[in-house]
Amino acid sequence: MNFTLQQVLIPATQGYDTVDVQIVDGRIAAIAAHLEVIGTTVDGRNKLLLPGFINAHTHSSEMWQRGLIPPVPLELWIAELYDFTPLHPEQIYLSALGTAVETLLSGGTTVVDHLVLIPGQEIATIAAAVKAYREIGIRAFIAPLIQDQELDTGLPTGGRSKETSVYHRSTDATLAILQQAIDQFHHPEQGIAIMVAPTGPQLCSDALFTGCIELSDRYHLGRHLHLLETQAQKLLAQEKYGYSAVEHLKHLGFLNHRTSLAHCVWLDEADIEILAATQATVVHNPLSNLRLGSGIAPILKYQQAGVNVTFGCDGAASNDSQDLLEAIKIGSILHNVTDLDYRHWLTPRQAVEMASLGGATGLGMANELGSLAVGKQADLVLYDLTSLSLLPRTDPIGLLIWGRPTAAIESVWVRGEQIVAQHQVTTIDVPALRHQLFSQSQWHTERQSPTVKQFEAHYRSVMGLPAL
Amino acid sequence: MNFTLQQVLIPATQGYDTVDVQIVDGRIAAIAAHLEVIGTTVDGRNKLLLPGFINAHTHSSEMWQRGLIPPVPLELWIAELYDFTPLHPEQIYLSALGTAVETLLSGGTTVVDHLVLIPGQEIATIAAAVKAYREIGIRAFIAPLIQDQELDTGLPTGGRSKETSVYHRSTDATLAILQQAIDQFHHPEQGIAIMVAPTGPQLCSDALFTGCIELSDRYHLGRHLHLLETQAQKLLAQEKYGYSAVEHLKHLGFLNHRTSLAHCVWLDEADIEILAATQATVVHNPLSNLRLGSGIAPILKYQQAGVNVTFGCDGAASNDSQDLLEAIKIGSILHNVTDLDYRHWLTPRQAVEMASLGGATGLGMANELGSLAVGKQADLVLYDLTSLSLLPRTDPIGLLIWGRPTAAIESVWVRGEQIVAQHQVTTIDVPALRHQLFSQSQWHTERQSPTVKQFEAHYRSVMGLPAL
Repeated sequence: MNFTLQQVLIPATQGYDTVDVQIVDGRIAAIAAHLEVIGTTVDGRNKLLLPGFINAHTHSSEMWQRGLIPPVPLELWIAELYDFTPLHPEQIYLSALGTAVETLLSGGTTVVDHLVLIPGQEIATIAAAVKAYREIGIRAFIAPLIQDQELDTGLPTGGRSKETSVYHRSTDATLAILQQAIDQFHHPEQGIAIMVAPTGPQLCSDALFTGCIELSDRYHLGRHLHLLETQAQKLLAQEKYGYSAVEHLKHLGFLNHRTSLAHCVWLDEADIEILAATQATVVHNPLSNLRLGSGIAPILKYQQAGVNVTFGCDGAASNDSQDLLEAIKIGSILHNVTDLDYRHWLTPRQAVEMASLGGATGLGMANELGSLAVGKQADLVLYDLTSLSLLPRTDPIGLLIWGRPTAAIESVWVRGEQIVAQHQVTTIDVPALRHQLFSQSQWHTERQSPTVKQFEAHYRSVMGLPAL
Repeated sequence: MNFTLQQVLIPATQGYDTVDVQIVDGRIAAIAAHLEVIGTTVDGRNKLLLPGFINAHTHSSEMWQRGLIPPVPLELWIAELYDFTPLHPEQIYLSALGTAVETLLSGGTTVVDHLVLIPGQEIATIAAAVKAYREIGIRAFIAPLIQDQELDTGLPTGGRSKETSVYHRSTDATLAILQQAIDQFHHPEQGIAIMVAPTGPQLCSDALFTGCIELSDRYHLGRHLHLLETQAQKLLAQEKYGYSAVEHLKHLGFLNHRTSLAHCVWLDEADIEILAATQATVVHNPLSNLRLGSGIAPILKYQQAGVNVTFGCDGAASNDSQDLLEAIKIGSILHNVTDLDYRHWLTPRQAVEMASLGGATGLGMANELGSLAVGKQADLVLYDLTSLSLLPRTDPIGLLIWGRPTAAIESVWVRGEQIVAQHQVTTIDVPALRHQLFSQSQWHTERQSPTVKQFEAHYRSVMGLPAL
């Protein structure tokens, strides 16, 4: 549907301009003062228009475990997560909807769902997520999370030999699933794309990486993975490859301008140079990095090296929200404690660009998304600047990024289709979603993860922590 | 008004209990299953009841500059803040209301307002804040921010001699204002209390501290100040006293069980021992510490040393929100990156206790506030656990503290009086407040602070930063 936003604030090189914006056939057709009205009129007065942000890394089904896993590092956290992972496609559908609603109501128009697959129901898992994202209308990159090594392989050995576990699915079978997912669901022109997404070097063979690269090249797919999230992963990479995981990925040919790398907490200077040279994108997930004690990613160094950086919420079992504005705020201000020279600190305007154009760049979509430019697709968010949380009036982008906006997202369009109006998602029945999430869950009090028990002593030993 | 909450969830030693809670004459009269109804009935089903949190450090009038000051460290940030500080008591009234609304809608029932005084209108400033807090009904500790040295005194000299600036008001005149404020406004039994609150060692003489101690002892007032927020303040204390600021405060007799100390980022082991021995409270303001690049306060060390810790939002020009749940979330998870041993990490339940009982303890009110206990005052918050942001159901406190609750605060009572109902503040006209904040402000684009220009070269020099 065509429409024209009237008298809306948009950021200018300095300050803000008040303009009209025409949207025709899902794209931005014109931006200027006093334009002719095409289609419906939308009142933009006292509102700020920005390109939609990209929630560039999450795992939607973790929503079933948010608020629940105790404060432990990734290697133990993931053991508990997998002991209690959802097993029904219906749950996948509901948590994808929940993830989408929270992303949309915090400024996001695109989600990258590094989707945990239900064993034996892999295609059904992907189908459930696709169904949810199509219904709600968010732009979605579905990155089926694959691996071909067992979870315990992901712990450093500390020099001790251990039995080789065999993963329940072969590398070839996993790649066949990916092929099927591409055939069935990859429709980027409709806003649903598949990515190749090995979980990370810690649980994947070179053969799996190579298979992913082939599929990515054949179908022009984005590439996604976890990279050096924790110190333990850095230790493991040294054990496994004898050198840096980043260097290994470069040798394999996995890194390119459409590769987005979640976390990147433990990279050294040489690794950073590789990212800059290969044009790979770092997806910064500040909240899960804090919650899991993974560390503070060297984002200011990435910026200075010319590495593209964007933001993700990460899955809701390690954050535990899907509020993108929260991730952007914390992901901006966190780094001020890592560099005494405030001339290097991120500004709110830089953060907006990282969250929008930075995200689009990491998905190979910078020509289509990520800024208010004529010809780009209309993935847009309209912020109500009369929300108490954005008052008194000062600098709209400063208020939005550094504040804690509530009831601020007035409207959202994806591909020119309105999916949030008057602060409400209009494409799905949100009260019904709440009811279903409520009725299919219960207030837990205590649970015990057998795998955490199994891993903990070894983990503490290799990380140099006192025995329990 | 008396009332009885029915079938509400409250935290138990393990898990949760479903109980009824009777509130009589502003206090908790009984907590048990199946109580007789006294007064009005409140449906507590699918809701969580917690003691109100304490926003234990803020500066309400900074709201006029939120989102606005560029990313610079405290010493330059404060120069810009003071160049553009509000000058009309009407503004103080409005920003106090705004601060109270945001605090209430994020779980707070008490605010500690370290209130910046308009020169020459000091009593009118305090009166405006008192009026706001009385009208809205939040419990308020008003801590008039006083100093007797000029702002430039707050920068380390780096060994260079500098002219001594004279502050515009004498120490005696400042103490006289405080005396008048106590006489006029100190009514703790009505929920409004005055605190003695020198801004911090960096801008206060020993005479001012001594005068504050005398008033505090005579009127049983809480004591509040900024302490070692930045590395520059630590350097300055060494220049000024020749030893630690904490030791100096101890010698002066300022530290006791009713002293709350905002920030405490740069304390060493000996300082921490002093805090533990004197029973002073640390108010952790994680968001402003990140935003200003001040550093990460050693909160886990405080916990291990037995120092009481609670949370504050800090003023909205350095955060830039007044969302207490956000401060608690970040103030909990931030420290996981400072200690590899996850056995030391804060749990959501610990965070709740720090934010409620910890805050009450710092104000000398632990017998009256801060927990769900029979006989305590009814400063209570009722959370709606059917908010999408708190679903699916897992652990209610985990969801609340680690998530990003929206529309979760259903009701709030202070001293047994309901001031939030059905997610809305009921005691003031919030749309009118929004209108006034909107009409008395404008979207700035650029402004220049003359004092920042004056301070910057010296600041960079003493901090070892390259010259511009």
